[in-house]
Amino acid sequence: MGLLSPVRTGSAVEATTGDIAFLQAMLDAEAALARVVAPTGAAEAVAGAARAELYDVRDLALRARSGGNPVIPLVADLTAAVAHTDGEAASYVHRGATSQDIVDTAAMLVAARALPLIVADLERTAAELARLAAAHRDTPMPGRTLTQHAVPTTFGLKAAGWRALVLDARDRLAALRPPAQLGGAAGTLAAFEAGFGAGFGAGFGAGAELLARFAEETGLAEPELPWHTLRTPVADLGTALAFAVGALGKVAADVLVLSRTEIGEVAEGAGGGSSAMPHKSNPVRATLMAAAARQAPQLAATLLGSLAAEDERPGGAWHAEWQTLRELLRLAGGSARDAVELTSGLKVFPDRMAEHLRLTGGLIVSERLAAALAPAVGRARAKELLTEASRRVAEEGVGLAEALAGVLPAERLRELTDPGTYLGSAPALVDRALARDA
Amino acid sequence: MGLLSPVRTGSAVEATTGDIAFLQAMLDAEAALARVVAPTGAAEAVAGAARAELYDVRDLALRARSGGNPVIPLVADLTAAVAHTDGEAASYVHRGATSQDIVDTAAMLVAARALPLIVADLERTAAELARLAAAHRDTPMPGRTLTQHAVPTTFGLKAAGWRALVLDARDRLAALRPPAQLGGAAGTLAAFEAGFGAGFGAGFGAGAELLARFAEETGLAEPELPWHTLRTPVADLGTALAFAVGALGKVAADVLVLSRTEIGEVAEGAGGGSSAMPHKSNPVRATLMAAAARQAPQLAATLLGSLAAEDERPGGAWHAEWQTLRELLRLAGGSARDAVELTSGLKVFPDRMAEHLRLTGGLIVSERLAAALAPAVGRARAKELLTEASRRVAEEGVGLAEALAGVLPAERLRELTDPGTYLGSAPALVDRALARDA
Amino acid sequence: MGLLSPVRTGSAVEATTGDIAFLQAMLDAEAALARVVAPTGAAEAVAGAARAELYDVRDLALRARSGGNPVIPLVADLTAAVAHTDGEAASYVHRGATSQDIVDTAAMLVAARALPLIVADLERTAAELARLAAAHRDTPMPGRTLTQHAVPTTFGLKAAGWRALVLDARDRLAALRPPAQLGGAAGTLAAFEAGFGAGFGAGFGAGAELLARFAEETGLAEPELPWHTLRTPVADLGTALAFAVGALGKVAADVLVLSRTEIGEVAEGAGGGSSAMPHKSNPVRATLMAAAARQAPQLAATLLGSLAAEDERPGGAWHAEWQTLRELLRLAGGSARDAVELTSGLKVFPDRMAEHLRLTGGLIVSERLAAALAPAVGRARAKELLTEASRRVAEEGVGLAEALAGVLPAERLRELTDPGTYLGSAPALVDRALARDA
Amino acid sequence: MGLLSPVRTGSAVEATTGDIAFLQAMLDAEAALARVVAPTGAAEAVAGAARAELYDVRDLALRARSGGNPVIPLVADLTAAVAHTDGEAASYVHRGATSQDIVDTAAMLVAARALPLIVADLERTAAELARLAAAHRDTPMPGRTLTQHAVPTTFGLKAAGWRALVLDARDRLAALRPPAQLGGAAGTLAAFEAGFGAGFGAGFGAGAELLARFAEETGLAEPELPWHTLRTPVADLGTALAFAVGALGKVAADVLVLSRTEIGEVAEGAGGGSSAMPHKSNPVRATLMAAAARQAPQLAATLLGSLAAEDERPGGAWHAEWQTLRELLRLAGGSARDAVELTSGLKVFPDRMAEHLRLTGGLIVSERLAAALAPAVGRARAKELLTEASRRVAEEGVGLAEALAGVLPAERLRELTDPGTYLGSAPALVDRALARDA
Repeated sequence: MGLLSPVRTGSAVEATTGDIAFLQAMLDAEAALARVVAPTGAAEAVAGAARAELYDVRDLALRARSGGNPVIPLVADLTAAVAHTDGEAASYVHRGATSQDIVDTAAMLVAARALPLIVADLERTAAELARLAAAHRDTPMPGRTLTQHAVPTTFGLKAAGWRALVLDARDRLAALRPPAQLGGAAGTLAAFEAGFGAGFGAGFGAGAELLARFAEETGLAEPELPWHTLRTPVADLGTALAFAVGALGKVAADVLVLSRTEIGEVAEGAGGGSSAMPHKSNPVRATLMAAAARQAPQLAATLLGSLAAEDERPGGAWHAEWQTLRELLRLAGGSARDAVELTSGLKVFPDRMAEHLRLTGGLIVSERLAAALAPAVGRARAKELLTEASRRVAEEGVGLAEALAGVLPAERLRELTDPGTYLGSAPALVDRALARDA
Repeated sequence: MGLLSPVRTGSAVEATTGDIAFLQAMLDAEAALARVVAPTGAAEAVAGAARAELYDVRDLALRARSGGNPVIPLVADLTAAVAHTDGEAASYVHRGATSQDIVDTAAMLVAARALPLIVADLERTAAELARLAAAHRDTPMPGRTLTQHAVPTTFGLKAAGWRALVLDARDRLAALRPPAQLGGAAGTLAAFEAGFGAGFGAGFGAGAELLARFAEETGLAEPELPWHTLRTPVADLGTALAFAVGALGKVAADVLVLSRTEIGEVAEGAGGGSSAMPHKSNPVRATLMAAAARQAPQLAATLLGSLAAEDERPGGAWHAEWQTLRELLRLAGGSARDAVELTSGLKVFPDRMAEHLRLTGGLIVSERLAAALAPAVGRARAKELLTEASRRVAEEGVGLAEALAGVLPAERLRELTDPGTYLGSAPALVDRALARDA
Repeated sequence: MGLLSPVRTGSAVEATTGDIAFLQAMLDAEAALARVVAPTGAAEAVAGAARAELYDVRDLALRARSGGNPVIPLVADLTAAVAHTDGEAASYVHRGATSQDIVDTAAMLVAARALPLIVADLERTAAELARLAAAHRDTPMPGRTLTQHAVPTTFGLKAAGWRALVLDARDRLAALRPPAQLGGAAGTLAAFEAGFGAGFGAGFGAGAELLARFAEETGLAEPELPWHTLRTPVADLGTALAFAVGALGKVAADVLVLSRTEIGEVAEGAGGGSSAMPHKSNPVRATLMAAAARQAPQLAATLLGSLAAEDERPGGAWHAEWQTLRELLRLAGGSARDAVELTSGLKVFPDRMAEHLRLTGGLIVSERLAAALAPAVGRARAKELLTEASRRVAEEGVGLAEALAGVLPAERLRELTDPGTYLGSAPALVDRALARDA
Repeated sequence: MGLLSPVRTGSAVEATTGDIAFLQAMLDAEAALARVVAPTGAAEAVAGAARAELYDVRDLALRARSGGNPVIPLVADLTAAVAHTDGEAASYVHRGATSQDIVDTAAMLVAARALPLIVADLERTAAELARLAAAHRDTPMPGRTLTQHAVPTTFGLKAAGWRALVLDARDRLAALRPPAQLGGAAGTLAAFEAGFGAGFGAGFGAGAELLARFAEETGLAEPELPWHTLRTPVADLGTALAFAVGALGKVAADVLVLSRTEIGEVAEGAGGGSSAMPHKSNPVRATLMAAAARQAPQLAATLLGSLAAEDERPGGAWHAEWQTLRELLRLAGGSARDAVELTSGLKVFPDRMAEHLRLTGGLIVSERLAAALAPAVGRARAKELLTEASRRVAEEGVGLAEALAGVLPAERLRELTDPGTYLGSAPALVDRALARDA
């Protein structure tokens, strides 16, 4: 019920990936199959019985243990249900198929239903980030490397970078075309020819035709081959989903840093409360997104590991995918949902950013000073002067302009030590990034 | 409901790790806390309301999103429930604690309840394996390395090895002592002194006393320190559980090999059926155990990764543990349950093993021949003779004794090429392994 | 020196990913930068000193510890080397850049140099597999699911499936366009404008222009933005490489099964010997490929985890990529090299396959019998007859045709129980798969 | 040469885990074996040739490809070298053993040599942390949860917690007893009886005796059984090493936070410089330790995955361990070395901590105020007052004492809002933690 995975609880993707949704997807696969292999009337009878609410999911799950997958008991129950209304139609249930055809097609249906939800939330997130990037195109803030102030950047460039990653994630997910699965017992489609060869014309054309027709009935892509042990679709889903969770993990990592009490350059719109401390406002959305980003890579690794699947159906590699893929869909769906909330409500505090730019007494632009001094006094001497000046800034608390007094005209030093004018191409890079279509 | 994870569906551990069980564990933690910080009557009132059936888990899960953990809404509901019968008692609910105290203690309670179930199934498995090892102490079978026949071994040694691994897993799990968690807002136990200092005597002794008393009330181990970001208990659980799943994965890997149609040296007692093929009897238990072994290591990696948890409570590393630890408990509990079924019903076919020992025409004992020929003809010449003889055995289908005819007396060659008498210390190693207490 | 990683030892990719190759790539990045920011003569002086053999790699590695990356000592040494011949040119070394610009560009250069080698070996492998698939388009063999004989397939279809996966891997790797990295201290390119603004025209155009020019000089792709903490290029490399290793892991998994002593349907052309057993011929190439497939997913997980990189340069996530990405390149390069050897030399034994098709006494086509009997006797009765017949086949050793004698005409039963004529669309699927361009 | 892995470059563990060290360990294993199976003179001849400098590592690595492991070419070269001085002795080289006996024993020798180095650095680190914990037992600093100030803690408690984790890591590593490996071709020790039965007494006792004698000669622990596919020793090493790296990762995570420019409560003694910015002093040791902590868990996962090793020697699972285990040893050794440097030089700034405690205007002790107000005005009213006061503190910049003026006597409010007196049991917990023996 989601008690231990708040990132996904109540999300749209949660609803499309639950056991009942998966059961319905298996039934949809069986109904699609019937439309391919059975006369119209029989197919309609199967479709009529292919409604999840007619079955007891928990009972199916328990009976799935015997054969190791839920299709075997489901076919029995579905056949019985169809037989109840149409005895002849019952004989078409699951005809020619193997359990994996149904489980894999169902998994792809579930993925195909979840993906647009995730993509939509990524696009909403990207739109919010475009707004933030444009609004803060020129808002100076400290650029930080290895936790230390480096040189100034703008918050707009940070938001534009987040958006670029989110769009990368969107592109990878939107490019996926989960295929239907149909192969029969060992991926040769033999039972279809055996049972219904006449229906599909003579000869070897049957296979390809079947793949196309079944795919069309399911609404999924047509596979090149039955892919019982050619797991490209699952591996691709795994890596694209983990990429998305990781991309959002970057946003979360930055928000967690910038929300710190001492930094406070951003805050979540509706921070989370505490069970003990009345004053706290925690970056909860970022926390949950960060937690997802710590889990997803290893789940993707499990799916990549299942590429090494022996035989025509492996003893373990396939079964290891089911729960893993579902969990990845949920983490991605939950994290994308939280990203919409996070980015739409994010509060940005330019004053804090400006204050922090002054924190190092001008050292944050020491790089510029080095470049400016070199032509005047030589590169080596410039470095000496800056090292000594940096020491004085750090130890004596004077500003960098003061510490370098006399080396250049005072006005020039003031200009050079103003962090707000050392933004480089940050604003232009924002423009460049926002030119990418969402 | 377990539709996609048959390895754990219906297992005892599944029941102890569900959302309702976790909710009850959180309530148990709150009740234990009340027994420490509240007067007896108030503590009883809290205990009376600390029953999971009084709460709406799904509603709690949804409300958990706001603060990022389920304790915040739970404390509200528990307080209200207590207040309903005893307004004064309500003020003691959760007093001094932080959300993490409750979630972590609950997680350890769940683990502490699941571990004995897993250990018991590992011990049952070990007992079955001891039986098999003893029964087949001297049953010769091919030893296989890199998929090829190497030299003979005995099935007893294989079973004894499985048992050794299972006992290793048992030892690691049985040694765990999940600790209670109590630290208050930032792990200093400050709120306890602030609110109830008098109750615990003066001075800094309060902390240690509290840890001991709370641990005692929960039945969990007393921690050395509050461990909000000292995650040894979770990392240890993760690695011990993944070890157990991996150890059972070795059993599964061997059963999958030995069950192959061409090998058939063992078979699961109740193999799984197929939705398409009437004749099939699949090694389903081994398949599910193998699937678990493909998932568990990566889940353990997530928990190991959460050791690097910043601050007094991290933004993400902690939250990433919850679902991951639960899934590991379930995989271990399910795999151990399947291991009992697998090993108690395993059918062993010594005749097939004997038949396979003859499959290479004696080459499986070529190592012995090399040793035997060396003193007679010299090591180099022995190798030449064997290489040539091996070629003839492979290409002409003659036996090794025949191919070497004349090199040694025929009777001696017959003896030396009998795989059943080249078992080395296998039986003695079985005895040695079985001497280890279960 | 590769002693513990035979999969990559001596491979072309090993040579392009070693420390010296990486050093050269860093120097190439510095030389390219000089061509962008320095006058021609100075750039030539830098290029002249940008040769790895002029530097002491071990010494650089040791000095890299102080600042945490190898660029800092390298810039010192390179500057000194350039100054030796052209004091003025030395002032242009590394101008405007940050260490990450050089390390990331070097990593992408190394990847860009390794990828074509891997792609070429995948294409060679695919060509060998196309040959095998065509040659064995109609060669019947047992299809195996959950380790048990299911229904027949053809070896051609298996090889065609391998090829499909290999081409999927090829496509993913060939689509990668590793970008150059240039951002300066915090990704704003500020130092370039500060120092050389005049050279690049006025205003914000400088950044984009610089990215384009530097990318062109390196031969790498132009990035959308400086990507110091937008790690799409590394994550994409990681997942594509792990995909490739996993795809080859499928080939290896099947070869390991089919090479088993009891199965022997294929054999590596040059199997590996043993230090103890003269007769052994091990599937060594498959073993090493399988070992790589067990490592790569987790390495990819580390790279996916590094997407969550805080700030403008993270403290850890970036550094975790270096060795990990290199190891993935090596595993992919080594596994692809082994795949060429494996597939080009693979021996296929159709006779063994045919023999195994008879192993179950016809049960391997029980699916076909079920379909054929149903119209004659009804589905339920057909199932009964087959269950009983299967029992007799298994227990009494009679053939399925004999066990079903009388149910259908003997001639028809003979036809139906011939596994060689129950190949379904396998040959047609081979044709379909081979139509995909390599 | 370590260019891409500065965490380990130049460390003591690096030297003990290199290819030459591994080669020497393999030779040590062969020499130990000779002492068990050969006459004294022959054993001495073998020992005399068992020096790594006599062999060409790169050549061995290249020749290892053929059989898939380095023992096969090594045995050839070692035999030749021994034969050069003692032809008879040469016949004892590798007698009875299999490649895995040598590789595994060598891996355990390498581990056994590296572990004390790591343990020693962990103990040095623990000693430094004990010093810091004692010195700062009462130094108040903000406790931070989910990135926000929670309630005060002391730096001593933080350091004591780090130490507890480091000692946990030390305990896990120090408890390891890497065993020798000896099993012969398939783990039955058959070749030893065949060749040398007389030497070991009659009957099945030979095996156990051999294990004990070989273990003694190597200095490693005696295994319960040959463990070719019972990989407890490797899995245990993997998880203990990853635990250690993760424990140090916690230290690193905290140092990275506390070193931030805006926080500055600690600094590394010798921060790293920058190639671009003269003023920077980066927490480089923490960065490298954090990077190691991002890699180790996934490497441990690979080792845990290799528990599922089929047969008497698996095709891949074993080979996947070699490089992975070595990399884990290096990460642990490097991270522990850096931890010594980090903790021995760490600069602590109590003034900055004190300053930050005032940053929230007293809100950091709002928990105490809630407890103190409740008896006076009731729990509900206390909460209202604090919520309103918190709002004023945040928005109007007044202190909490001022915002609550009139609710309690001014002096009492001053006391209650002083963060330095709300340390709870932190100092007592430091004492408790330091009582644990190092």
